[in-house]
Order: sequence, then structure tokens, then C-alpha cells
Amino acid sequence: MKIGGLWKKFPVHYVFGANTDVGKTIFSTALLRHLANENSLYIKPISTGDLNEADDGHVNRYVSQINSHCLSQLSTPCSPHLALQLESKVRDTTEEPHVNDQVVLSKLNDTLHSHISKVRTGYGLIETAGGVLSPTLNGSLQADLYRSMRFPAILVGDARLGGLSATISSLESLKSRGFDVDAIAMFTSPDDPYKNAEYLPQYLKGVLGETKVISIPSSLPPPRGLDTDIRDELEMMDNYYFRLTDSGAFGEIQEIIDTNHAERVSTLDSIPERALSSVWYPFSQHREITRDTITTIDSAYGDFFATAKPNEESMLRPSFDGSASWWTQSLGHGDHQLAQTAAYAAGRYGHVIFANTAHEPAVKLAETILDYSQNPRLSKCFYTDNGSTGTEVAVKMALNAYIKRKKSESSKPREIGILGLKGSYHGDTIGCLDMSEPSIYNEKVPWYTGRGHWLDYPTVAMRDGKWTVSVPESLKSELGCCEQSFDSLTDVFAIRNNKKYREYIEKEVKRLLDSGREFGAVMMEPVILGAGGMNLVDPEFQRALVDVARNSDIFKETHVDSDTTWSGLPVIYDEVFTGLYRLGTFTAAQLLQVFPDISVHAKILTGGILPMSVTLASESIYDSFLSDSKADALLHGHSYTAHPIGCSVAINTLGRLKTMEQDSEGPWAPFKQDWKSSKVTETWSCWSEDLLNHVSASEKISGAFAIGSVLAITFKDESGGGYASTASVELQKYLAKGQGADDWNVHARVLGNVLYLMASQSSKPQELEAIQQRVRTYFQ
Amino acid sequence: MKIGGLWKKFPVHYVFGANTDVGKTIFSTALLRHLANENSLYIKPISTGDLNEADDGHVNRYVSQINSHCLSQLSTPCSPHLALQLESKVRDTTEEPHVNDQVVLSKLNDTLHSHISKVRTGYGLIETAGGVLSPTLNGSLQADLYRSMRFPAILVGDARLGGLSATISSLESLKSRGFDVDAIAMFTSPDDPYKNAEYLPQYLKGVLGETKVISIPSSLPPPRGLDTDIRDELEMMDNYYFRLTDSGAFGEIQEIIDTNHAERVSTLDSIPERALSSVWYPFSQHREITRDTITTIDSAYGDFFATAKPNEESMLRPSFDGSASWWTQSLGHGDHQLAQTAAYAAGRYGHVIFANTAHEPAVKLAETILDYSQNPRLSKCFYTDNGSTGTEVAVKMALNAYIKRKKSESSKPREIGILGLKGSYHGDTIGCLDMSEPSIYNEKVPWYTGRGHWLDYPTVAMRDGKWTVSVPESLKSELGCCEQSFDSLTDVFAIRNNKKYREYIEKEVKRLLDSGREFGAVMMEPVILGAGGMNLVDPEFQRALVDVARNSDIFKETHVDSDTTWSGLPVIYDEVFTGLYRLGTFTAAQLLQVFPDISVHAKILTGGILPMSVTLASESIYDSFLSDSKADALLHGHSYTAHPIGCSVAINTLGRLKTMEQDSEGPWAPFKQDWKSSKVTETWSCWSEDLLNHVSASEKISGAFAIGSVLAITFKDESGGGYASTASVELQKYLAKGQGADDWNVHARVLGNVLYLMASQSSKPQELEAIQQRVRTYFQ
Repeated sequence: MKIGGLWKKFPVHYVFGANTDVGKTIFSTALLRHLANENSLYIKPISTGDLNEADDGHVNRYVSQINSHCLSQLSTPCSPHLALQLESKVRDTTEEPHVNDQVVLSKLNDTLHSHISKVRTGYGLIETAGGVLSPTLNGSLQADLYRSMRFPAILVGDARLGGLSATISSLESLKSRGFDVDAIAMFTSPDDPYKNAEYLPQYLKGVLGETKVISIPSSLPPPRGLDTDIRDELEMMDNYYFRLTDSGAFGEIQEIIDTNHAERVSTLDSIPERALSSVWYPFSQHREITRDTITTIDSAYGDFFATAKPNEESMLRPSFDGSASWWTQSLGHGDHQLAQTAAYAAGRYGHVIFANTAHEPAVKLAETILDYSQNPRLSKCFYTDNGSTGTEVAVKMALNAYIKRKKSESSKPREIGILGLKGSYHGDTIGCLDMSEPSIYNEKVPWYTGRGHWLDYPTVAMRDGKWTVSVPESLKSELGCCEQSFDSLTDVFAIRNNKKYREYIEKEVKRLLDSGREFGAVMMEPVILGAGGMNLVDPEFQRALVDVARNSDIFKETHVDSDTTWSGLPVIYDEVFTGLYRLGTFTAAQLLQVFPDISVHAKILTGGILPMSVTLASESIYDSFLSDSKADALLHGHSYTAHPIGCSVAINTLGRLKTMEQDSEGPWAPFKQDWKSSKVTETWSCWSEDLLNHVSASEKISGAFAIGSVLAITFKDESGGGYASTASVELQKYLAKGQGADDWNVHARVLGNVLYLMASQSSKPQELEAIQQRVRTYFQ
Repeated sequence: MKIGGLWKKFPVHYVFGANTDVGKTIFSTALLRHLANENSLYIKPISTGDLNEADDGHVNRYVSQINSHCLSQLSTPCSPHLALQLESKVRDTTEEPHVNDQVVLSKLNDTLHSHISKVRTGYGLIETAGGVLSPTLNGSLQADLYRSMRFPAILVGDARLGGLSATISSLESLKSRGFDVDAIAMFTSPDDPYKNAEYLPQYLKGVLGETKVISIPSSLPPPRGLDTDIRDELEMMDNYYFRLTDSGAFGEIQEIIDTNHAERVSTLDSIPERALSSVWYPFSQHREITRDTITTIDSAYGDFFATAKPNEESMLRPSFDGSASWWTQSLGHGDHQLAQTAAYAAGRYGHVIFANTAHEPAVKLAETILDYSQNPRLSKCFYTDNGSTGTEVAVKMALNAYIKRKKSESSKPREIGILGLKGSYHGDTIGCLDMSEPSIYNEKVPWYTGRGHWLDYPTVAMRDGKWTVSVPESLKSELGCCEQSFDSLTDVFAIRNNKKYREYIEKEVKRLLDSGREFGAVMMEPVILGAGGMNLVDPEFQRALVDVARNSDIFKETHVDSDTTWSGLPVIYDEVFTGLYRLGTFTAAQLLQVFPDISVHAKILTGGILPMSVTLASESIYDSFLSDSKADALLHGHSYTAHPIGCSVAINTLGRLKTMEQDSEGPWAPFKQDWKSSKVTETWSCWSEDLLNHVSASEKISGAFAIGSVLAITFKDESGGGYASTASVELQKYLAKGQGADDWNVHARVLGNVLYLMASQSSKPQELEAIQQRVRTYFQ
């Protein structure tokens, strides 16, 4: 929950080095002398080397009235990770017993906040150790450690032979971690033969954004000799700094700092207004939006946004990304591996056409996702750009397969519908809208034509501390009205062979068929219906529906006895939301233990950084498009089909998630431990079962559940719930209030009378606990 | 047209350095000694420093039977770009007058091909100069210069203090340019205090792919003293190398080289087979696909793919990307600025939810594209993921605005259609299919319902050397049958106030309205109908259609007198293909000089690397969704709406294209010069007008045109043309044949009887000329 910050009158910068010994401390000292501001702050978070010659000591000696802090120091002059291993005793400047990266970050955060809230105006410099990617105390890299606190940077360049490569490379490493680099400062003596500072601006022009290059016309001072008299040394250095700050270079640097800072502040302030004037928001009634209701996101890291507080001096706060950014996040924001993987694919291919061509990432991703799916029915992977296009392709596949096998010449293709569940939602394109019954999402869209029938179903939630299956009013006469309780969520998912469900579904569908309706596919979101209101469906009901489609006599014309060929009706699972470990398993189908003929995936697929979708299908579906005519083929394909960047980040994402699943001591272990009452680890959540107990006891609540990284709390709502309900808004507002030293809050989304929280697949227990604590407090 | 290469029995590697003086030459020498292969090849493309101590000299001295080449040498021991400036005379080893980067690349290409085709087996090392990003002769960077020839790399790491930062940073710079780095080799003396080579593998594990770290247990040799006897030196170095190659490190390196090479070869061989077994291709009748018809793309750079020749010893060839990868490319493949921009956005944000939130890239892109569009009607930007979703949103917008103003309670929204042009194509989702008349693309899709009417129209092409407007058979009775000739393409675009067109359209639409039809929007691809067959529509006809919609009495119920508010029917331009300089101007609307109320953009938008789309709309369209009810809003939005990576690369792309447009001496200057007969520079093409003259004179051809980066050649086809025609396949096959020393070919796409070629917006005249030469030859 550390995000750096932006204070209106107190610019803070990192000082990074393109190498060791390029003059970071000399630069910082000279800049602080030039700024001559008694409120300025110098912080050296991690220092190694001679204790008497520590960088903060140097700064203290040569800058009058400076607030300087060294947050950890080791005496061995080498990389911090090595020094920490070597030294039996670490000089911890605040006497804390264990110094490590996280302690240093906390101290840095505290030091900045407490100093700046006191003095309000001034400048802050944070001098890093070594080069931009030198190791930290615990063996991370400087730039990675400091990334969560995304202050802008000044890079001290390397003027030596080879220094251009080091400087540009360092700049690229900082930029690819999302840092803004305001300036490159380089010490260059008058007789410098390499002229690196002359070359750089030419190269950088337009290449890496707004990074200015400032040449400081001086060599670095000679290292202090052992036999130098301390007074001589003081005088010599004092003179050196006088000459340095005389040069005008530091005036230029101050101007860059001031200008860029003013621009950051005014940009952050202006964004809501500018957004209102040029942006048309998705899913939004613009009449309800004002500049005050728009949350400006300055950056994001892990599970947190850095969001704007426009009217305060401290302009940024950490906000927990409570919707996993519309259900896309799994590895957290600002993940450097994904950024690097995307850059590699962009560098190697950009995008290349994917029609009768092949590239390795597309083939490898297809193989990987088919393999991980462990669904014996699936054998082919079709690429599109997002969940909507992926489900449209799924329906095109299923209906074509159905029509080909049915060979019903008389059937009107337009009137063959989908058999689904009430409240299903499959995407925003018109074909997707047609897959659902009328609702607020589609009823005003001119071309909308609901094509199918959607059954009501029993739902699962914890109610008053008990896992309960409840039958909706509409089905009570058919299914009985008793609620059924279970000891654990795992028990809910156990196969129960509920004959009533099967009989009801068969009867209902037969009635529809007899009235002249025709269906060409079963389509559903397995386990949870997401956008329709976060409904956890009784898994037994979904199993019964598939069983009717595959085995009932009512579909005997298209029945086939097989475990891999579709039978009766092709079964489509829209796993765009539920798949890829969102619910704790690779697919939600694995929770149901009943597998589809077609499966659609997106969102998490690409690590939460850019859109792509895959529609997986069985050989029997694929075969139905084979013929001697091109007109019979699946004539669908977007320009960016299987773009290598998407395929590459997807491979990286799925591989890392798989590793997490397999690692019994990995990041999911504490969560699985917490849910051990579920007996097996198949159903678990990163949200605690105990929280559900607590919440579900509230009178305001009709039920709550958690599975995987999803937590859903359903409020009682006399208006009957649904999208237009506002029963959950009070909790949403409560969570949006700032709290704690950092004034952090929770950015949560509601769906009618449901408030949900969604973590990533790499969320940390202690961070989630802080959020759970706030939810508990609300329900006290 | 240089792409490196992959020879079955001759692995070639770059040797890059994490800094200068890390031992690239010592490493290369020792490795070549270890390999002990008389066919091996050592190339130093650019060398600076003492002529007597040049790296190739060193290699020659200490490796017996080596083929070594230095391709350019400068004596000043500094960066090549500086040395070239400083030295009056350059020792060009092949006596060529002007040594520069391109000459060096050509020599490198030639040296490799001629050597390897002679010896067939062996190893190749190309030693770069300085660090990975040290400048080249002309002030590019080492890694950028060599990127077009994408050989795998070995990075010699830096074992010194600070060397970890330099090494990891260098690795990242190589990877983000699409290089594979097989190994990092690092010289480490036994008493090395920094242990960089121990830390690296821990860090790299899983982070940056398959890069292995090899520690070479030795310091670098001392630099040669001035007074050292040459025989002492020889003996000392020889002993040094004996010790070095004894260590086993070079055995490990050879194993890595051999293993990775074998894997590269087998991957390239296996991809078609693997693709067939796991991939379902877009727009493809799989019965027509075999492993031999799949083109494997190993990488891409500029306008060229590196494609596989699986059965040959030289496994890769350059293939001109003749479809601009399905019309997406504008800045060429493997563009490092785009890769870096994407990485920055991924590092700063990943993706962040865009519902009542705002981030700078989304706001800035909206402002930029609205500004550049110079369309006074447009004021709002709605984000979706691709052209299909963008046009669906456009139709939702237009029909809603129409219905709201019409206030016709009785109108059935499902029956309000689109007024468009025959052969229109707007995307693959079912709603998009509904926007076009029945065709091969949609007629077999079960839910397809053509919703509208599509008019036939006169077309433009060069026929027998004359720019000609031709009226189709169906309209001859209405519009007259005469072909009209023009002196230039610019004249074709001049406003002609053709009353016949207007009268015909008005009459035809009135007839439809009278028969009970209702239309809610005009929708068309301005200037060129792309997927429908690359038809260049007479611009006057499109202007007339808009004029009828806006000003005719037949739409007087919804007429408004205004230059910015939509009138009659909202006008949608689908500029997904035509916009963003594809036709030479920012929008095709600028060519028509008549502007839409809604405009859709995608493809080029994101620099050809990943999907995103914007739908731009006027305030009057936007206003029609405002109300006090959320149900009236545009309830459309994908999870990755306005993803920051897409917005960021789009801003970079549009900015650079704008700079090209404004630069009268920039990359478009020679093309505009070539088209000067057009008098103004509004209509021009990177394909030469002279080529059109030549091609259009052929008896096989019914017409040809070029505009912007598009060249379209329509073959006479007795079957009437269309998607099923194969008249153009002969030229496609001719272009696919390998030619020249590099065996390069052209990967062209056909649309029925039309073969088109599409360059990028940054194509180079000399490369296009080579391709044009082949087209000319075909038509000789």
C-alpha cells in the first residue's frame, strides 16, 4: 500500500545512476546546495561502504541546513545483497532488529510523509544505490524495489567510454518499469573525448519521451586520499561545489524539476475535466458524471491504483483495485515480466498476419491452453480479440455444428436459439446481446433480438453462517421450497445426482420444443453468472442441464454416444470471467466436473494488460466446417487475430499461474490453509471463510460467498435487486473513504444490490486482511 | 531486405558486450579456439582503435585456420560515430569509397551468405562494438543496426562493481528489440569479490526467458604493455587461452549454442504441423490447408517477414509483407519505439478499469485523434477493442440518435436499417454482418439478418493509362453508360456537383421508403471499399449519398439546419481501413471533403502491434443518450476498454505519422514528387503512377489504382469476379517465388480477382521499387 505520492509544493525525485561511480552523491549534494531550501530532504535508503564516508554524511557536510536520512547502512563496499550476507551486524539507523527491503520501503514512506506534512514546501531527493538494476538488500533490483513508490527520476549518466550504452540502457530499464525520467545529468570535463552528452539529445529526440539531457561541465572530484588533511579536503570540496553550482547546469535542472512538477500537478488536476470533454464512457449515463465523480488513476502497482485527490496538497492515495480492473487482473498491475515479454514480442514481430501463416507464440499458446484445460473434448483453438467476439465465434461454431448434423432443411437458422440461464451475460456486441434475455443491457438496443430461452435456477450462498442452496420463488412449485444446507463449499460442489433438477429441465424444454421452438446450443457461464449479478449457481443444476442436452430423448435426433463428440446440443461454457484460476481452478468446468464442447476465455488470459480471447472447440465441432467450399468455413477473423504480443504475455501468464497452483508452499498456501474446512483444496478463496460468517450474519445481507479471488455480498433489497438497485452503494461509499496514514481506500464496484471485491491471483494475505478488516468494521 | 538467416548446420551468433572492455574479443577468440572448426567465421563489422591491434587481427593471431573479416575500421579509440567524424580517412577494408551503416550491413549479409553457402557447416560469430547500445558509424545504436538481421546473441557480462546493473539492463535492451539471448558469459577471477555471476542465474530464473549464465573462471588478460616483447606477448596469450579453454566453460557454451540451434531448427520445421493440430484458422477452409501451405513467420522487421523454407539448408527468406499484415502496419514491424512505449505503459499501469475513471493516455489519445481529424462535427471518443466492435458501437449510436429524434413510437427498432453501398464490409461479429447485404462472408451464419439497403455505384480506376470513372451495368440506364476520363487522380476527387447521382439516389431511396422500409443511418467506407474487393468508389457518388441523407426532403422529419448537428440520417464512416493516412491523408473524409457524424478507426491506430478501436461521434449523437435513466445510456464496454498500452502506442503512432505528413523533406517526399502530376499532394501513393500506366495497359487487367499505401490490380474474370474468383492467383504465385541472392519473395493477398499490395506508411522507395520491378516484369 505504498504508492509514492505527489505533493503540490514538494517535488520528490529518485536519483538513479547509469552505473556505480557516476556521481550520484556529488550530483545530489550540488543540486541540494543550488536549491538552498532549508526544508529539502535527502534520503539514502540503502548505503554500503565506509561508515565514515556514507553518502548522507557527505550531503550533511556540504549542504547547510539539510534534512538527511540514511535508512540502512552496510560497511562492505559492494552490492547490498552481498553486503547483507557478509556482515554479521548491520548498522540499522533506527535500531530495528531486521533490516530488509520492505522495512526500508516502509521507512522511506514514513520519512517522506512525516517530513512533508510538516514543512509542506521543499524538494526531496532519494538516492538509490549502484546502477538502476543493482541488487537491493534482499536481492531484488533497485528499480523494481522502488517501483511501488513511483516518483519521477533523474538519471546520472555515464560520460566514460561505453557510457552511452550504459546510459541509454539504464533509461530503457527505468522506462519499461513505468518510471518517468525527467533528466539525464552527466558530468563532463572540458577535455572529455567521448562527448556522450552531445550525442544523447540527438538520439533521444522523440525516442523515449521527454527526457532532457543536462551536461555538468566538470569532472567528478578525485576520490579522497588516505593522507588528505580533513580541512584541506573540506576546502577543496567546498570550492569544487562552488564551481559546480556556478555553471548554470543546476539552474537548468531546477527548472526541469519545477516545470515537470507543475505539469504533473496540473495534468492530474485537469484530467477529469478533459475526460468529460473528449471521452464517451462505457456503460455510463453521462448525466450522472461530473468531474468530481471521475477517479483519475495516475499509475498502478500490484493490487493498488495511485488515484488522485485533486483538492488536497497530497494529491495521490493508494486505492485497492476492488474490481480487479473489470475482472482482468491476475498478476497485479505494473508487472515487469509482462512488460518485458510484451516488449520482446513487439520487438521480434510487432503483429504479423495470421491467415495461413503461423508464428511460435500462437502455436505455443494454443497447445498450452488446450493442455492445461484437461478437457478431453477440446482440440482446437480459435483466436479473437475479446470476450464478446470469442462468444460470438462460439455460437457460430455451435449452431453450425447443430444445423449440419440436424440436416433439417426446413429449419430457419435465424430462429434457432440458445438454451441458457436467466441473467446470463456474454458480451456487448449485438450478437452477444442476442444470447441473453431482455435486460437493461440490451432492451434499448435497436437491433436486439433475444434468441433463446433462459431457465431460472437455485443459487448458493452463505446465509447466516451456513452454506445454503436456495430455490427461487418461480421454481418452488417444481423443485420444492426447502433450503438445503451444506457443511462446506466443497460439499456443495459434490455430485448429488439431483433427479428433480433433471426432470424439471427436461419437462420445461420439452414444453418449449413442443410449442415449435428450436435450440441449437446450451450456453452458460459455469459456476458464477458474473455481469448478471454475481450469482453462484447450484452446480448440480448446471450439471443437470448439460445432462439433459447430451442424454435426453428430447434431443435424440442429434444424439451420439461418445465422451468427446458433442451430443444432443453442443455445450458452450463462457469462461471469460470464471476461467484461468479466477475461481481457484484452471477452468470452472473442473469444479463442475462436466466439460463443454466449446469454451471461451479472455480477461485474465493476457495477464490483465491487453485484450485477446480464445474459443476452444472439439474436433467434432471443427469438422462440421470442413467441406470443399470456402463458403462453409468459419469466415471470421480480426486483423489482429493471434497478435504475438497477446499470445506471448498469455503464455507467460498461464505458466506463472500454473506454477502457483503447483507450488504447495506458494502464494496460495495461506488461503488454502484458511479454507481447510473445505477438506480438499478444490474450493478455496483468498477471502476468508470467517469473513463470510461475519458478513452473512448481518441483517442487511441476504447472502454472501467467496470462491477463488471473488467475494460477493448480496444486500437485501425490497425493490427486488437487479441492476437498478442501490442497496449496496452505502458499503461502496464507506470503502471509498480514505483511511490510515496513507489515506488509502477501496475502489469497489457494485452490480445492483451486490457489492463484490475481486483480488488478483497474486494478492498478498496481509494486504487483503486490511481490506477485510474494513468490511468487518462496516458490518459491526 | 536483410533478415539474418538460419542455416541448418551453421549457427551464427552476435557477441554483444554489457559494456566496453568486458572481453568480447577474448571471449570470441577463446570460443573459436574451443570450437576448433576450420569453417568457422569471425566477423567484426565495425572496429575502432589501434589498427595494429584490431580485433580481427587478434582473432587471426590466436585462432588457427579461422576465416575472419573486419568490415570497417577506424583508428580513433572511441565510439564509431565519433571516430567517423574525426577521421579524414577511413580504412575501408574493401576499398569502397563511403563506409556507412548500410554498407556494413550489406557486407555482413554478403560475407555470411557467400561463406556459408561454400562451407555449409561451421559456426559464425559477429562481434559488435562497445556496449549493446553504443553508437554505430551513423549514430544509430549497435542493437538497432543489427536488429534487421536477427541472429541470436551471446552477451558478455560485466563482472565488475555495478556490472550486474549493466548486464541485466543490456539484456533487457536486447530482448526489447526482439533478440534471443542464448547465454550471458562472464569473466570472473577466483578472488572476485562481487560474485555477479552467482547472483545472475537466481535473478534470471523465470524472468527473462531461457538465458543461461556461464561463468568463465578467469580474469581478463592485462592490457598489452607498450614495452612487452611481441614473442613474450604471444606466448603469454597462448598460455592464457589454453588455461581458459581448459576450464569447461566454453564446452558449456558450445552445448548451449548447439542445443538452442537444434531447437530453433526443429521448431521452425515443426510449426506448420503443430499449427494444424491445435489452431483453427480465421477465414480458412481447413480442407485446403496443409503443412506446405502454411507460411511460418520467424520474425519481422520493417516491411519484411523472415519466413521459413523448411526443406532447405538456408531456412529463412525475406518476404515482403504485401498485405501490411491485414492492413495493420504503418511504421513497420519490430519498431523499437512502439515496443518501448508499450513497455512503459505496461510498467506504469498494466491495464486499469475505464468506467468513471480516467488515465492520461486515454484522455490524450481522445484529444489527439479528435484534433487531427479536423472534422468540426466530432467531439467525443468512445473506446472499444477492434474494428468490429467499433462499428457496432457506431450503429448503436446512430440508430439511437435517429429513433430519439424521430420519436416514432410505432417504429420497430429491429427493422430500421442502414443505407450503404454494395460490397460494404464492416466486421465479423453478427451485428456487423447485419450491416451488409448477403455475401459469402455472412450468408451461412445462422443469425445473419441483412438490415438495410445497399446501392450500387460507379468506380474509379486507371484503365489503359487513363483515370476513368465507370458506371456499372445496373446503373447505366439511370446514369448513362459513358466512361468519364480524368487527367489525374486529384481531378477525380474534385467536387463536380453531379446532379444525376443525387437524383438517382433520391429516387431510389424514396422508392424504398414508400415501400415501407425505414433507414436510421448512412454507413459507408469512404473512398475505398476494402474487404468487399478493393473498390475505389467515385467520390462524387459518396458525396451525393451524404447530401441526400442530410438535405433531401425525403428525410425532412429529422432534418436540422446545422453544420455540426446530424441532419436527416446520421452519417457513419467506417474508416477502420481507410483512415489514419492509409490513403495519404489523416482521414479519407478529408479526400471527400464531406465529413461524417460518426467515424470509426482501428488497425493502424495502434501502430500495427495490438488491437484497439475508437468510435468518434458528434455532440448531437452523444446528447441523444443523455437522460435521467441509466437504461438510456450506451451500455457497451469491454473489460480492456481504453487499455493504456493501446492508447500509449496510438499516441506515439499518430504523432509520428503527423510528423511525416508535415515534413516536406520527410519519407513521403519522394512519393509525392513522383505523383506531382496530381498537381496537389492530396492524392499520392507510395506506389508509382507509372506502374499503374504499365499494368493497366495489360490485356489481363480491367483496371488498377494506387492511393496512399494501397495498390490494387483487378484482373478480368469471365466468372464476374468476387470472392470466389481465382483470376489473380497466378500473379500471387509469381510473386511468392524466391528471387535474388537472398531468395526474397512477396507475400501478397488476393480478394477474388483483385490482387492488392499494401505498404506501410514508412516504406522505403528503393525497397518498393524492387517489388514494383517484379510486378512490371510479370506484365511484360
